[in-house]
Amino acid sequence: MVNITFPDGNVRQYEEGVSGLDIAKSLSNSLAKKVLSVKVNNEVWDANRTIMTDATVQLLTWRDTEGKTTFWHSSAHLLAEALQALYPGVKFTIGPAIDNGFYYDIDLGEGRTIRTEDFPKIEKKMLELARQKNTFDRSDISKADALAHYEQLGNEYKTELISGLEDGDITFYKQGGFTDLCKGPHIPHTGLVKAVKLTNVAGAYWRGDEKRNQLTRVYGISFPKASELEEYNRLVEEAKKRDHRKLGAQLKLFAFSEKVGAGLPLWLPKGTKLRQILQDFLMEEQRKQGYEMVMTPHIGKQDLYITSGHFAKYGEDSFQPIQTPKKGEVYLLKPMNCPHHCEIFKTSLWSYRELPKRLAEFGTVYRYEQSGELNGLLRVRGFTQDDAHIFCMPDQLLEEFKKVIDLVMLVFTRLGFGEFTAQISLRDQEDRSKYIGSDENWEKAEQAIIQAAEDKGLKTVIEYGEAAFYGPKLDFMVKDALNRSWQLGTIQVDYNLPERFELEYVGADNQKHRPVMIHRAPFGSMERFISVLIENTAGNFPLWLAPDQAVVLPISEKFIPYANEINERLKQHNYRSTVDIRNEKIGRKIRDASVQKVPYQLVVGEKEVTNQEVAVRRHGEGDRGSVAVDALLEMMAAEM
Amino acid sequence: MVNITFPDGNVRQYEEGVSGLDIAKSLSNSLAKKVLSVKVNNEVWDANRTIMTDATVQLLTWRDTEGKTTFWHSSAHLLAEALQALYPGVKFTIGPAIDNGFYYDIDLGEGRTIRTEDFPKIEKKMLELARQKNTFDRSDISKADALAHYEQLGNEYKTELISGLEDGDITFYKQGGFTDLCKGPHIPHTGLVKAVKLTNVAGAYWRGDEKRNQLTRVYGISFPKASELEEYNRLVEEAKKRDHRKLGAQLKLFAFSEKVGAGLPLWLPKGTKLRQILQDFLMEEQRKQGYEMVMTPHIGKQDLYITSGHFAKYGEDSFQPIQTPKKGEVYLLKPMNCPHHCEIFKTSLWSYRELPKRLAEFGTVYRYEQSGELNGLLRVRGFTQDDAHIFCMPDQLLEEFKKVIDLVMLVFTRLGFGEFTAQISLRDQEDRSKYIGSDENWEKAEQAIIQAAEDKGLKTVIEYGEAAFYGPKLDFMVKDALNRSWQLGTIQVDYNLPERFELEYVGADNQKHRPVMIHRAPFGSMERFISVLIENTAGNFPLWLAPDQAVVLPISEKFIPYANEINERLKQHNYRSTVDIRNEKIGRKIRDASVQKVPYQLVVGEKEVTNQEVAVRRHGEGDRGSVAVDALLEMMAAEM
Repeated sequence: MVNITFPDGNVRQYEEGVSGLDIAKSLSNSLAKKVLSVKVNNEVWDANRTIMTDATVQLLTWRDTEGKTTFWHSSAHLLAEALQALYPGVKFTIGPAIDNGFYYDIDLGEGRTIRTEDFPKIEKKMLELARQKNTFDRSDISKADALAHYEQLGNEYKTELISGLEDGDITFYKQGGFTDLCKGPHIPHTGLVKAVKLTNVAGAYWRGDEKRNQLTRVYGISFPKASELEEYNRLVEEAKKRDHRKLGAQLKLFAFSEKVGAGLPLWLPKGTKLRQILQDFLMEEQRKQGYEMVMTPHIGKQDLYITSGHFAKYGEDSFQPIQTPKKGEVYLLKPMNCPHHCEIFKTSLWSYRELPKRLAEFGTVYRYEQSGELNGLLRVRGFTQDDAHIFCMPDQLLEEFKKVIDLVMLVFTRLGFGEFTAQISLRDQEDRSKYIGSDENWEKAEQAIIQAAEDKGLKTVIEYGEAAFYGPKLDFMVKDALNRSWQLGTIQVDYNLPERFELEYVGADNQKHRPVMIHRAPFGSMERFISVLIENTAGNFPLWLAPDQAVVLPISEKFIPYANEINERLKQHNYRSTVDIRNEKIGRKIRDASVQKVPYQLVVGEKEVTNQEVAVRRHGEGDRGSVAVDALLEMMAAEM
Repeated sequence: MVNITFPDGNVRQYEEGVSGLDIAKSLSNSLAKKVLSVKVNNEVWDANRTIMTDATVQLLTWRDTEGKTTFWHSSAHLLAEALQALYPGVKFTIGPAIDNGFYYDIDLGEGRTIRTEDFPKIEKKMLELARQKNTFDRSDISKADALAHYEQLGNEYKTELISGLEDGDITFYKQGGFTDLCKGPHIPHTGLVKAVKLTNVAGAYWRGDEKRNQLTRVYGISFPKASELEEYNRLVEEAKKRDHRKLGAQLKLFAFSEKVGAGLPLWLPKGTKLRQILQDFLMEEQRKQGYEMVMTPHIGKQDLYITSGHFAKYGEDSFQPIQTPKKGEVYLLKPMNCPHHCEIFKTSLWSYRELPKRLAEFGTVYRYEQSGELNGLLRVRGFTQDDAHIFCMPDQLLEEFKKVIDLVMLVFTRLGFGEFTAQISLRDQEDRSKYIGSDENWEKAEQAIIQAAEDKGLKTVIEYGEAAFYGPKLDFMVKDALNRSWQLGTIQVDYNLPERFELEYVGADNQKHRPVMIHRAPFGSMERFISVLIENTAGNFPLWLAPDQAVVLPISEKFIPYANEINERLKQHNYRSTVDIRNEKIGRKIRDASVQKVPYQLVVGEKEVTNQEVAVRRHGEGDRGSVAVDALLEMMAAEM
């Protein structure tokens, strides 16, 4: 008998050789039908693999990330099986699961290609094979036999892979008529795959090396229910509409220029306004919490980054150092603001009474990202962190953490991200050699984070071993309107930089002590935050954030004076308002205002002038009829 | 007879061979005593040099910049004469007048030095020689004789200089026992120098080349009246007190760090506040004038600067280009914002109805200055321009110029610079080949500037040939409290960048046309402006600008709650206020608040709590007695 421990701590006894599937069946038949794989002592296994010793066991289904991964990896094998049937002689290389689906890299051979037009045929074949409910059978194979198998198939990719593996450590998986070199694990049988969609086809170099063969990468996604594919298709369509790159151009928020450089956003007037409103909002909240703003240059001497330790990580894949006429005087584009803030802290000798010092800056930093990884505002090469560094005594950590959590929660709530969770990253529970700083301080900091999150009622996940080497941290994940998760704000404890910069304060004992630092950024970066904000709101910003809150649309030139009057009234009440004085038909003016998603579109013509009213259209809602200006102002004030 | 034309247009006849001095005597004896040199047909001559043809003549005195230059250059010769007497065998190199005095670079020979302790002795000798009223006698000398003269003296510096001169073009000047290779001109005699002060001694390389001999540079200044030296000394003392570098540290506005890099200011919380207030003030005024804010990155691809033409001027003395992992993808730290703004203009096709487009940015730029030229915030390597570019039709230039002049005048007046003049820089009247753009457009732009300045009642000086090759400009000079002049704001027309970036708008004729650009910056740069502002106010900022407007000073711990109450009241009225809660004596608290130059220092103790009052000290004025908080608020509001 073996003792099986479940995630809830329960222990049950089973026959030696029991499988995850057997265990599931012992609990409930309907559960057994959903099991995709099983986590045995923290390793993911095939659900039908036998368990020979005592173990902790977690049954994985579609609800678990690792269950999905297994499902999609098996779907990659299914894709391969279909391709083998449709493209005889095709050579397979690797076919992993990815965040949202799977792909397989294949060598179709001279003159053959796959186009999106071919997708339906392949999808059909995959579903046909899936319906055969073929099991995935694992077998150990010697290195020699494995090599022989693929040499016979003339597949130089697999033989290259096998050459790098240890004999005794090689397994094949076979489902239906398809066998693959594979470590597994896989789902019990192909029949679990009920819906399939191929999403893309692209070129990919063998082993990512542009000097080697170019392969064909076929991307797909699959689901255990047809309805889930429908939901997926709906979300893809919705996401396309909300694509912040598309909306950024449509709403004239930002642009990119080939001449300025990829990944370097140009903020247009409306985007700049949006950013300023967000920055002002955060600045005001920070002021209330005792933050002080500073400004620092966008470069720093190499020495600064040698002191901070960043230079050691500054490699060939970074923006290269900036030489000057003076030999040995070398600068770097700043990749972060903390070293500059440490130098500001050092300009005075602080008393413990003056701590915490909270130095904040909207600091623009530059990091070279590969061009293929650039993505609108979401992934750029120059971005502005809503950065702050809190220099405090170790005993002040809990209080400061709570304040920062308050601030982050306030920011998220005000900006419409009601649903968020936090990940607490702590030290590895076993190996503590890789962390800098005393055990006592770490203990204090970790407890402070856990305590602060608890006090503030945060929904948290603790991840051991995910802390940075210099301190534990807390990251916020928000869910957007399409149920997508985004990592935004972060709070991080740092014992390292105060050490490296030899920061000090004078304690109550009149002795010098080392402060601890907190790095924090509620938005994360202005660019990233705004891209998520655009996608979450589909560009329909709440009234207080909209760069243009109202536009007055005179029906003809005759009504421009009245339109200007309305506009002035709105401006007197501090609304951002304009008048569309173009010589265009009213229909066109309304259409353009709607494209720009201006919240209040105020039409004025003969009737409105006579009655001293405006015809109100609320974008996204439609007509609200004609009202007096005072009523409009009340309407808008209520919405603010 | 020769016809002499005076600056006022009057023409008088004189004997051929008349000198400037003779002309002066013919007008008034007292004027003749003041004449230092004379401008003949736009060239500055010795006052006693003979005039043989018709000429325009301007007599130069101490009131004229060129008169001062002659005076100081002659004083350099006087210094040399004194040094020759005191340090036999000293070798002379060059001794020019500078903006504020003169210097002479000398080779004292092995083992001899001059220290500031030696200054009184040298000054005494100079005055002794001055009292001899020796004339400065000019003589033409052949190259061979000139060389022989200095070879005999063993002066390799002068022989090197002479080698580079044309024979027939070489003159010596002699006063008393001192002869010098010199082009002149000089003052009539040494007796005009009544007061002398040596100001500094420093090392200087021969011909500025660090591989050559190091010489001793002795700096001095001289005056035609002893009282002027006294006034100079007073201003020097006052300037020292107002030195923005000293006050910047004292008021905790900004700091520099060796590690971050020379010339790269770190803005401390109070300096950041000051900058933000100035920026907010300008932004609000710009908003009223229809400017739109944008934000652009601090780097740009080399291509961008090849298009703009800046790259061609980017030499070895600049920050060097930033390489990336991708070969050929090279960036530059941006030295100006205009190319980025041109790229923003290009993101849309504008109709003439939408012009002018006024794009503004507080854009931080980086330019490598030699370390010896860095000077606090006045001369830095990274600075933020209050930049804007106005894209308009040529016909809109006049209107836009007037608006910009309004803005600049508003800024100067609000910030306490009541006295300012403007220099209009136009094309060279003869050689027009070096200018880009059509004659018609230049004419239009030049007339627009002249007209706008006149309409706005500006005090202007027109300088021909001082325009940039791409357009005429207007620069503002302000006078500070010590009567020093500073160049601040600038407005500049540009036909070049619209051409290079191929900017276009659609005209009323439905055809594409090229807009013209105006560059303008009322402050010039935030750094430079703030340094001048600090020196002008001696750090006593007007109340609306002061980073901390009030500080509440409780006499002891007991009164902290009441102090907090007062502080909250002030904050409710949007004043920037703090409480000094330190455990210090009240005398110390007041002293520290005064060092920080906090305008309102509010002392609270037993009596104030009882009477619900505060004891008001206005920095720079002293006690205003105890008043109720409402009265204090009125007092402050009145001052705002």
